[in-house]
Amino acid sequence: MLNAADETLARRLPEGVLREVAEGYLEEPRGRWRGIAGLVAAPRDVEECAAVIRACAEARVAVVPRGGGTGLVGGQVMPGGPAPLVLSLERMLAIRDVLPEEDVMIAEAGVTLQAARDAAAAAGRQFPLSLASQGTAQIGGVLSTNAGGVNVLRYGNARALCLGIEAVLPQGQVMRDLKRLRKDNTGYDLRDLLIGAEGTLGVITAASLVLAPIPAERGVAMLVVDSPDAALHLLARAKARMAGGVTAFELISGQGLRFLRQAMPDLRQPFADCPDWLVLIEIGLPEGLSAAAALEGLFVAGSEAGLVSDGVVAQSAREVDDLWSLREHIPLANRQIGAIASHDISLPLSEVAGFIRDAGAWLAAQGDMRINCFGHLGDGNLHFNLFPAEGRSRADYDDQRAGLSHHIHRMVVARGGSFSAEHGVGRLKARDLAEWGDPVRLAAMRAIKQALDPAGIMNPGAVLA
Amino acid sequence: MLNAADETLARRLPEGVLREVAEGYLEEPRGRWRGIAGLVAAPRDVEECAAVIRACAEARVAVVPRGGGTGLVGGQVMPGGPAPLVLSLERMLAIRDVLPEEDVMIAEAGVTLQAARDAAAAAGRQFPLSLASQGTAQIGGVLSTNAGGVNVLRYGNARALCLGIEAVLPQGQVMRDLKRLRKDNTGYDLRDLLIGAEGTLGVITAASLVLAPIPAERGVAMLVVDSPDAALHLLARAKARMAGGVTAFELISGQGLRFLRQAMPDLRQPFADCPDWLVLIEIGLPEGLSAAAALEGLFVAGSEAGLVSDGVVAQSAREVDDLWSLREHIPLANRQIGAIASHDISLPLSEVAGFIRDAGAWLAAQGDMRINCFGHLGDGNLHFNLFPAEGRSRADYDDQRAGLSHHIHRMVVARGGSFSAEHGVGRLKARDLAEWGDPVRLAAMRAIKQALDPAGIMNPGAVLA
Repeated sequence: MLNAADETLARRLPEGVLREVAEGYLEEPRGRWRGIAGLVAAPRDVEECAAVIRACAEARVAVVPRGGGTGLVGGQVMPGGPAPLVLSLERMLAIRDVLPEEDVMIAEAGVTLQAARDAAAAAGRQFPLSLASQGTAQIGGVLSTNAGGVNVLRYGNARALCLGIEAVLPQGQVMRDLKRLRKDNTGYDLRDLLIGAEGTLGVITAASLVLAPIPAERGVAMLVVDSPDAALHLLARAKARMAGGVTAFELISGQGLRFLRQAMPDLRQPFADCPDWLVLIEIGLPEGLSAAAALEGLFVAGSEAGLVSDGVVAQSAREVDDLWSLREHIPLANRQIGAIASHDISLPLSEVAGFIRDAGAWLAAQGDMRINCFGHLGDGNLHFNLFPAEGRSRADYDDQRAGLSHHIHRMVVARGGSFSAEHGVGRLKARDLAEWGDPVRLAAMRAIKQALDPAGIMNPGAVLA
Repeated sequence: MLNAADETLARRLPEGVLREVAEGYLEEPRGRWRGIAGLVAAPRDVEECAAVIRACAEARVAVVPRGGGTGLVGGQVMPGGPAPLVLSLERMLAIRDVLPEEDVMIAEAGVTLQAARDAAAAAGRQFPLSLASQGTAQIGGVLSTNAGGVNVLRYGNARALCLGIEAVLPQGQVMRDLKRLRKDNTGYDLRDLLIGAEGTLGVITAASLVLAPIPAERGVAMLVVDSPDAALHLLARAKARMAGGVTAFELISGQGLRFLRQAMPDLRQPFADCPDWLVLIEIGLPEGLSAAAALEGLFVAGSEAGLVSDGVVAQSAREVDDLWSLREHIPLANRQIGAIASHDISLPLSEVAGFIRDAGAWLAAQGDMRINCFGHLGDGNLHFNLFPAEGRSRADYDDQRAGLSHHIHRMVVARGGSFSAEHGVGRLKARDLAEWGDPVRLAAMRAIKQALDPAGIMNPGAVLA
């Protein structure tokens, strides 16, 4: 039943936008928080979206924008305070245009990443952003969080794949800036300001997205390396040989392989033992080159330089999928094992190996734990996750958890790294940002928030605590 | 001699930062405006820069930041009002770090683009931003104006080549955000907000820049095409074949070739006649492919498809330079001929050919003129410049100039294009922005300007009129 304030607000909304306040609107994947909501509204177009936000601004009701709900930092749920309106983009589903001759697509916020990728493929192009939750994650959320994934090394984050946006600002104004231009220097970059603002400065309702040609030759290999340092030297060689053709360069640890064996014994692994470190490399090359031959050449060069000790190069599309499947199942295996704490960190490339070494040594002194360190090594982005020692449970580490994460973030920041590489700040890391962020930058962020959202209705508590 | 206000301000500045108010600080390349200045200050480091801006904020004296002074829209000169302090970055010349293993360089604002490119080359890498004024243009200015140039197609604008900045905000606060990270989602994107803000939101004092590997195989060709439309079809084919390997794709018109013959008769042209349309294409490919062979393959495919009628592929580094030299001399020839009006516009790729056709038809009806349309076709960025008919002078068109430019900008905007693709807004196009910009976006820009620069001291009159 609605309370009086919600009833008043509901009457001011466009007809038919309200949805039932169902449980699904109040959840986030890790179950850390349960959200609250007075109303759930799902506008059908940008005008309805603007009307909803205008009504909320007038009523001083908070708005929590919601895409696919796959975010891992609690940006999509407000767990306390006066109950907000949850603004779901689920009905803004149009792919307004696909322009392969421009390498551009215009999609509304509620389009899933997978649907956007499929639409690009149907036009003979790719939308290169790719991440585990792409079947559920939506374009609006992907942009609002500046999502990353496995192809950032070559194609950039979500931000790099967006030419223009349509958005509703916090007082209900519609900003129409759906440009399809590669060059446009006409004023402040509000597009990039809203991208990554996690719904605190407005709601992105549609975007012009960058498509890319599909490289003629695609190849994937999994190579055994001695150490993260060797992996990084191999990356440098790959970049030098491939002229920008390295699409993905992922690190996998022996611990990750052991977790996979335990959680998914049927998943075929290419190496009989569990090497300490592997890299999965994908390349995309021009016509006239064999990708498999190029990877074999890299393997030989890496072996001669003492960087690579073993490896497999996929010889078919099926083998490509099999190798990627290993990488993609790591987060699922992690979930089955149950992490003590997860860290989505990035480091300058030359600091990665030192961090892995020092953090490992420090953790060894803190107690018995297992580390699964994996991720987008080519971007300096590691998922550095801690697990209970064999035979122990997550709960055994409850007292340590916060302290461990805090110290790991401290070590990352000390090396010029980031405590949130691709997941964003949300509510989970708002205190980290307050602690580790440059104070002048934080003050400027607050001034901008105050200027654009004077009533403070947009996703309060996210990003800026 | 200083007036009383300048004397008071001068006493509050760090010792030794003042320079003589020399003519060079008051000029811009096209001679459209002459700036004024009460003082010229050239800080040696970020702390001195902050002290200068703090003193100006307290004294309510405007600050006009100045890099190499090569900007074409008057962003670097204040022609009227209370005399500002010109803040020259000329003494912030350190390249603080070159990290080839990370593909990163940290350079201060006063480093010339050429010096940055040389430092990258000395480390076996490239800093891919390249433009005509690179010997004089400085990193700070290049970022503040989000400069473009000939390699944007592959490597992006200045914005895409910057990972982090150090900047002084309008109240003299130092924002330290010189990150070297490919992924960092910790709050609002103030870096991209300051990039392209043309000194109106603060002064960039140093930046972490992205380096790129030098492709193993470089090739350049000049191909004769029937029309801009044929050129764009050829571009699509080149992109599909080269897997991201197209570095530059420049359009040259027959008019441009005729101006070159007239102004620089010694410059060797590869074609005996002056074809109506040429493209200059540069590619960079992985090891194992011959770039010349790839270009010959493109030539054959383009010929078979009826897109290309003639062409030359450079067979040596010398021939590469010769072909580029033709393209690079076009602006110099233009200057000798003397333009009625110049337009730095961009269009969605699928609107380029229609615009060239329609704008040409409209101009033909306005009187006798010559059009030199050239530029970065791969980015949809044209320099669409108008010249007097043979035997007539610029002055004959004085009455028409403003009206011609206004209508051309109207045609561009109607096709979803930009009236400033790579040069910025400055003072020249502040009224265009007010007229053509989305009003909601403009209001948000003003709110941000007010929030970050409440005293309005940073480069007043630029961008926001």
